[in-house]
Amino acid sequence: MSTARYHSTEVDLDGLYQDMSEHNLQPLWAMQGLLTPEPVPRTLPHRWRAKHMRALGERAGALVPIDQGGDRRVLACANPGLDGAPYATATLWAAVQFLGPREKAPAHRHSPSALRFVLEGESVWTLIDGDPLHMAAGDLVLTPAWTFHEHHNPSDKGMLWVDVLDLPMVEFMESVFFEDGPSEDVEPKTDLQSASEQLYGHPGLVPAGRAANPSDTHSPLLAYRWADTDAALRQQAAHTGQTDVTMRFTDPVRGGDVMPTLRCQMRRVTAGTATSTHRQTGTQVTTVLHGSGRITVGDQEFDIEHGDVIAVPSWARTTVHADAGSEDLDLFTTSDAPVLNALKLFREEWS
Amino acid sequence: MSTARYHSTEVDLDGLYQDMSEHNLQPLWAMQGLLTPEPVPRTLPHRWRAKHMRALGERAGALVPIDQGGDRRVLACANPGLDGAPYATATLWAAVQFLGPREKAPAHRHSPSALRFVLEGESVWTLIDGDPLHMAAGDLVLTPAWTFHEHHNPSDKGMLWVDVLDLPMVEFMESVFFEDGPSEDVEPKTDLQSASEQLYGHPGLVPAGRAANPSDTHSPLLAYRWADTDAALRQQAAHTGQTDVTMRFTDPVRGGDVMPTLRCQMRRVTAGTATSTHRQTGTQVTTVLHGSGRITVGDQEFDIEHGDVIAVPSWARTTVHADAGSEDLDLFTTSDAPVLNALKLFREEWS
Amino acid sequence: MSTARYHSTEVDLDGLYQDMSEHNLQPLWAMQGLLTPEPVPRTLPHRWRAKHMRALGERAGALVPIDQGGDRRVLACANPGLDGAPYATATLWAAVQFLGPREKAPAHRHSPSALRFVLEGESVWTLIDGDPLHMAAGDLVLTPAWTFHEHHNPSDKGMLWVDVLDLPMVEFMESVFFEDGPSEDVEPKTDLQSASEQLYGHPGLVPAGRAANPSDTHSPLLAYRWADTDAALRQQAAHTGQTDVTMRFTDPVRGGDVMPTLRCQMRRVTAGTATSTHRQTGTQVTTVLHGSGRITVGDQEFDIEHGDVIAVPSWARTTVHADAGSEDLDLFTTSDAPVLNALKLFREEWS
Amino acid sequence: MSTARYHSTEVDLDGLYQDMSEHNLQPLWAMQGLLTPEPVPRTLPHRWRAKHMRALGERAGALVPIDQGGDRRVLACANPGLDGAPYATATLWAAVQFLGPREKAPAHRHSPSALRFVLEGESVWTLIDGDPLHMAAGDLVLTPAWTFHEHHNPSDKGMLWVDVLDLPMVEFMESVFFEDGPSEDVEPKTDLQSASEQLYGHPGLVPAGRAANPSDTHSPLLAYRWADTDAALRQQAAHTGQTDVTMRFTDPVRGGDVMPTLRCQMRRVTAGTATSTHRQTGTQVTTVLHGSGRITVGDQEFDIEHGDVIAVPSWARTTVHADAGSEDLDLFTTSDAPVLNALKLFREEWS
Repeated sequence: MSTARYHSTEVDLDGLYQDMSEHNLQPLWAMQGLLTPEPVPRTLPHRWRAKHMRALGERAGALVPIDQGGDRRVLACANPGLDGAPYATATLWAAVQFLGPREKAPAHRHSPSALRFVLEGESVWTLIDGDPLHMAAGDLVLTPAWTFHEHHNPSDKGMLWVDVLDLPMVEFMESVFFEDGPSEDVEPKTDLQSASEQLYGHPGLVPAGRAANPSDTHSPLLAYRWADTDAALRQQAAHTGQTDVTMRFTDPVRGGDVMPTLRCQMRRVTAGTATSTHRQTGTQVTTVLHGSGRITVGDQEFDIEHGDVIAVPSWARTTVHADAGSEDLDLFTTSDAPVLNALKLFREEWS
Repeated sequence: MSTARYHSTEVDLDGLYQDMSEHNLQPLWAMQGLLTPEPVPRTLPHRWRAKHMRALGERAGALVPIDQGGDRRVLACANPGLDGAPYATATLWAAVQFLGPREKAPAHRHSPSALRFVLEGESVWTLIDGDPLHMAAGDLVLTPAWTFHEHHNPSDKGMLWVDVLDLPMVEFMESVFFEDGPSEDVEPKTDLQSASEQLYGHPGLVPAGRAANPSDTHSPLLAYRWADTDAALRQQAAHTGQTDVTMRFTDPVRGGDVMPTLRCQMRRVTAGTATSTHRQTGTQVTTVLHGSGRITVGDQEFDIEHGDVIAVPSWARTTVHADAGSEDLDLFTTSDAPVLNALKLFREEWS
Repeated sequence: MSTARYHSTEVDLDGLYQDMSEHNLQPLWAMQGLLTPEPVPRTLPHRWRAKHMRALGERAGALVPIDQGGDRRVLACANPGLDGAPYATATLWAAVQFLGPREKAPAHRHSPSALRFVLEGESVWTLIDGDPLHMAAGDLVLTPAWTFHEHHNPSDKGMLWVDVLDLPMVEFMESVFFEDGPSEDVEPKTDLQSASEQLYGHPGLVPAGRAANPSDTHSPLLAYRWADTDAALRQQAAHTGQTDVTMRFTDPVRGGDVMPTLRCQMRRVTAGTATSTHRQTGTQVTTVLHGSGRITVGDQEFDIEHGDVIAVPSWARTTVHADAGSEDLDLFTTSDAPVLNALKLFREEWS
Repeated sequence: MSTARYHSTEVDLDGLYQDMSEHNLQPLWAMQGLLTPEPVPRTLPHRWRAKHMRALGERAGALVPIDQGGDRRVLACANPGLDGAPYATATLWAAVQFLGPREKAPAHRHSPSALRFVLEGESVWTLIDGDPLHMAAGDLVLTPAWTFHEHHNPSDKGMLWVDVLDLPMVEFMESVFFEDGPSEDVEPKTDLQSASEQLYGHPGLVPAGRAANPSDTHSPLLAYRWADTDAALRQQAAHTGQTDVTMRFTDPVRGGDVMPTLRCQMRRVTAGTATSTHRQTGTQVTTVLHGSGRITVGDQEFDIEHGDVIAVPSWARTTVHADAGSEDLDLFTTSDAPVLNALKLFREEWS
């Protein structure tokens, strides 16, 4: 910007900037890129390959114990655009977690919300405030904010799953709280169906009457089983004739998203077809459950297959191609859309 | 109230009252029973016996045709406390509807909301805006306000079911609108699962994406099948160990009640047990699906069995006893609780 | 409806109807006027003239005492279409209340919501849970459901005002509760500005911090002063150039209507102009504060002037004409629109 | 964490970490400080002194022009804890803006929400979508997300005010959009009262009727005048007898906060008194309007006076002392509390 009219000199300006800096003030007129016509995300399109995550997860399983410190054997996806932060996108944490034979990841709770999406295996239970949720391929299990949760594997086979958390958002808001859980020697329960599902897992039905008292702060339904999700996708595709169908996971008591910060959806793209292009504000993390194909995110194209994890930046045009002669392509996606909605910042476009 | 202090005479007062009456004004101080410590309902506790309703419904089926006038072969429960009005309670319409072999009740729509609860049979379909909903024992089917609905019976057996409507409320609010539906000779569809259920009948899942567009004004899930309700009750009873369990039917998209004016619940009381006593403001209509027993409503006690319909006035203490050596007692109840809630008039007590 | 095809006889049908009646069942197919294309209200358009209400109110003031029974010297508007019920419309109670010099109408509370609209005078206070609200011409004072309220007149002039209640609705829902208030000999307060207004009567501002704790169930702002309403109407008219402007009274904490069942609005029609025609579902009661003119309600036309009360049935086309060479016509209207909205039954049209 | 049991070697682990890094995966078990018992904010307690901001603002006014590029002569507060980012706290932008005699800051709009709080002067107007809002000491003016806004100073005196924006949050969510406004040579309006205030600035009153159509996305009331805020504080203090009173600025149509991301409050601490200690999750920026005193934020204590700006990190215990023999201490505070609430992360404590 020209300073000629103002008869100021470089020295005057330098002096001004120097004094401003000493007083922790910065000149807006000298900043670039603060307000841009469209978002310029830090998050980059990226794909983490399943084969690498599985191999490294198993090596970690052999090399690294879990002990009473409350940590988890977790390999966090670190988006290359985020300057070394262990985050899959600016707002979403995504990672694979490996739990070996007869291991327990001890109970703790924290203000970030978390979910577990299972790609394979069936030998782990997550307990939430003591309620046992079995985990098998295609299942979504929620561990809402501030609920005590732990994992245990009573079998002799290790198991790997994907964690997604809103930790980057909670950390940004300077609101992370954490507590270790009570230390118990009790053998954790291993029912195939949790209390949560017995009470809240029936379509269009919730307990009522004197005793019914779901939490104010989170959905009471904590597990979504693959059989239901698969049937829903199949029926939606059959009924609509669409080759690109999506189901959203919801809170049966309040309607709306499963958690205040995270939206979860499952998408099925018919083998041999391509979707239209879509973009939305806010970021997404997608995991491939079945099938194979290609996903175009912004100016990047990735081949994708079972277990791959993909980071989608805000406002990046995304298109999906499902390989022919294969299973349909099933994609599980978590986004921060509930937050964008609450802040009235949500926009989306199809083309 | 004494008038002595005021040195007025009967003549003065009579003159005042006469003149007031001529000008359509009434003296509050001379009214009784306008504001009472507790509600004094017009609705009376009442039971309509299944055997009478079935017998009379079948006679009507033999004597009375359905033709193009848009009427229905419906026997309306008329509460003896309501001065001849054809209403089961002050706020709720309840009736049995009979549809004979190969009959059609033609399409219409209206501002009152309606539901159909099926006690027996399986030979009728209700179409809602063209979507076919099969009706079988224990099913709840909704026909929300202003949706075109019709019934057809392609079989050679007649069928009877229970209708509940908010018509008394809509009529009271002077807001009844009605329209006949388009007259079609098309053979109505008879799928066993409606589009509504294919899209919205999966627990915790709703369609999302470009095409998803449920109505603003009513729940998109229009049928609740007995298999789901039965499983939900069974699991709630097993999990809680309670002998008195209730499930509420809900809108999967918004959470909350199935319709803005009507709350629907199914209650299971274990054979040989009795419930605590409960009361709430607003009225209720209860139908017995399975089992037998006794229900005490206010100062009335009724033996009840499959198909009986019971009217429960506002604030009437209600207790239920389920006969031993029988099936559990399953009761389907509709109430106006959503209206009481919206008006912040809802109260309830247990004892 | 023809019975020929069914080979039934008059005797058969009579027998059926007789038996049905004995069992409190009524035949829908024999009913007329239950479901009509548009509402057919019981409420009739009606005008109660100020001069009659004032004269009769003053006569009642001379003849009828108020004593400790908790009653009020109230002349209730009784709509001629409601079979003698003391209601201005099917859903709204409207009345004039007269309080003589140095009189007190003792404290009580009830589940119906009430409001007081003042046409003239300035010598009465309403206390709500002990908070004194002064009443003067053009003021709106709310006495929400279940708040203790009383009136007292410390002056030597009587005063008349208009009450509007949702009593017909609460009575219809069988939810009337009533309690006398504690009997106190304490001289009631007579501040010109209530706590309610001191705390909540500032535009766009509400108390916050540790102590702030407004009620869950009703708006904390209980008085709306004429000076503010007048200024708002004047500015809206000046800014928009419209000759027909309306302000709605709102709850400053929640937004939305002043009470769950009652909507209050003030309308100003410029002298010498006429409005467009409007209708809505649900009923309305209108009071004239200033000016004179004509109001057309359905097929009725009424000359109106200060203090007149007009009943407007549901769905009745209403047009207002303001006399020229006079003050602008100011109309205070209460309606049941919040209930119609909650029940998703609200419709409105202009023409 | 011990690796002894696992018989792994440093080399094995180093190899694992190396391979993980190549694949953009990071080991959670090796991270510190990710989940802490309580928040560990990046934001530091900080005070920017008015005298420095004013002096530097005026120097910038002499040295730096505003031209058609859409920039603003703004000195942004840069919290020393944020690694050089021009943000007052992790989530809030705060800055002083200086507009010289007869200058115009041209129109633009952006997805971040902004507010202007005026400490002194009265010679500037902000236009929002063409509506002119005058700015004088103690006034709060909102420029909600995506509304075109510009500033102009028709006088011959410069003016300084404080801007607060949610820009850090919107940038974090990768949702910044920006547009220059239309370039107009029209002389901007300079009314003392905007349309916004004429229509929405009356307590408990909003326009209704055919034409009323406030925005879906933001409060229609865009200016809050000092006279109203002062009166509200004065009356709350007088009525409650408290020496520490707070008013919250609200949206008159929806209730609730002024904008989806920003909460605004004015606090008055009586001269010579101290407040209790308070903390909340999320950050705050406070400006001193009147009076002087001390504020303790976490382990930092700052003397404060008119025009000072203070950054308050999340969960930092804050206490305020108002100097005796002075005006009461009036503090204007903006926080991100609406976001914390929407995300169900809000906590607060007093001690």
